[in-house]
Amino acid sequence: MEQRISLVTLGVGNVARAKAFYEKLGWRGQEVENTVFFQAGGLALVLWNHDELAADCGLENTSREGFGGIALAHNVRSPREVDETIAAAQAAGGTITRPPDKTFYGGYAGYFLDLDGHAWEIAHNPGFALAEDGSLTVPSFDPE
Amino acid sequence: MEQRISLVTLGVGNVARAKAFYEKLGWRGQEVENTVFFQAGGLALVLWNHDELAADCGLENTSREGFGGIALAHNVRSPREVDETIAAAQAAGGTITRPPDKTFYGGYAGYFLDLDGHAWEIAHNPGFALAEDGSLTVPSFDPE
Repeated sequence: MEQRISLVTLGVGNVARAKAFYEKLGWRGQEVENTVFFQAGGLALVLWNHDELAADCGLENTSREGFGGIALAHNVRSPREVDETIAAAQAAGGTITRPPDKTFYGGYAGYFLDLDGHAWEIAHNPGFALAEDGSLTVPSFDPE
Repeated sequence: MEQRISLVTLGVGNVARAKAFYEKLGWRGQEVENTVFFQAGGLALVLWNHDELAADCGLENTSREGFGGIALAHNVRSPREVDETIAAAQAAGGTITRPPDKTFYGGYAGYFLDLDGHAWEIAHNPGFALAEDGSLTVPSFDPE
């Protein structure tokens, strides 16, 4: 198994409503058969009906309540961008679960939930390099 | 907000156990302060304690039962690779929720759950190009 992710699919209650939320944040994608594909670097972020996604996974239909146990992070280049993005998410109808503040690792970050409760961290982390194209490289944690 | 994901963090019950599972599938990462970072193309897949992740998100601690509403996909270059990867996941202790089979879109795919119930689709989709480095490009769905 190569070490990569090809798609991240978010189960949503209403695809049109979820698409509109991400469009308010500036994302642009393609909709086909009630599924939305956003190109996001070398992978796709996908919006699909929660129940259809569960069925596709071979799972019994399940509750949409509570924390799903996965958080997505979007790293930015400055603390100001964190504030701006969290403000944009709130304006678009997202729920701010952690207002932007300094983090234990010397960065600055906040969290919002999208309309279906998916958690996004918006973070400025000076220790994690972002390339020009936005790709992230994990630094070496070796103390040497 | 630029259109990209920087990290995908999976909440897990036991970081060492979860790390061992992904290592059995061939992933190699770095552990620091009980958190594991795997470089995965232009982002990082992260393993972190579920309760700490929930708290970091600003959420009350929540159940780990049931489908979290997000599926990750790992696309490969042949149906045989789908079979091999699903078999490796089963051997590593994963739960196969959909044995590999033909899909409605003309591909071939199966699903497994990792030790903490996170859903992975392993798919061969001839319509979604994979570059040499494994990055995926969403095709144009425009009928023109």
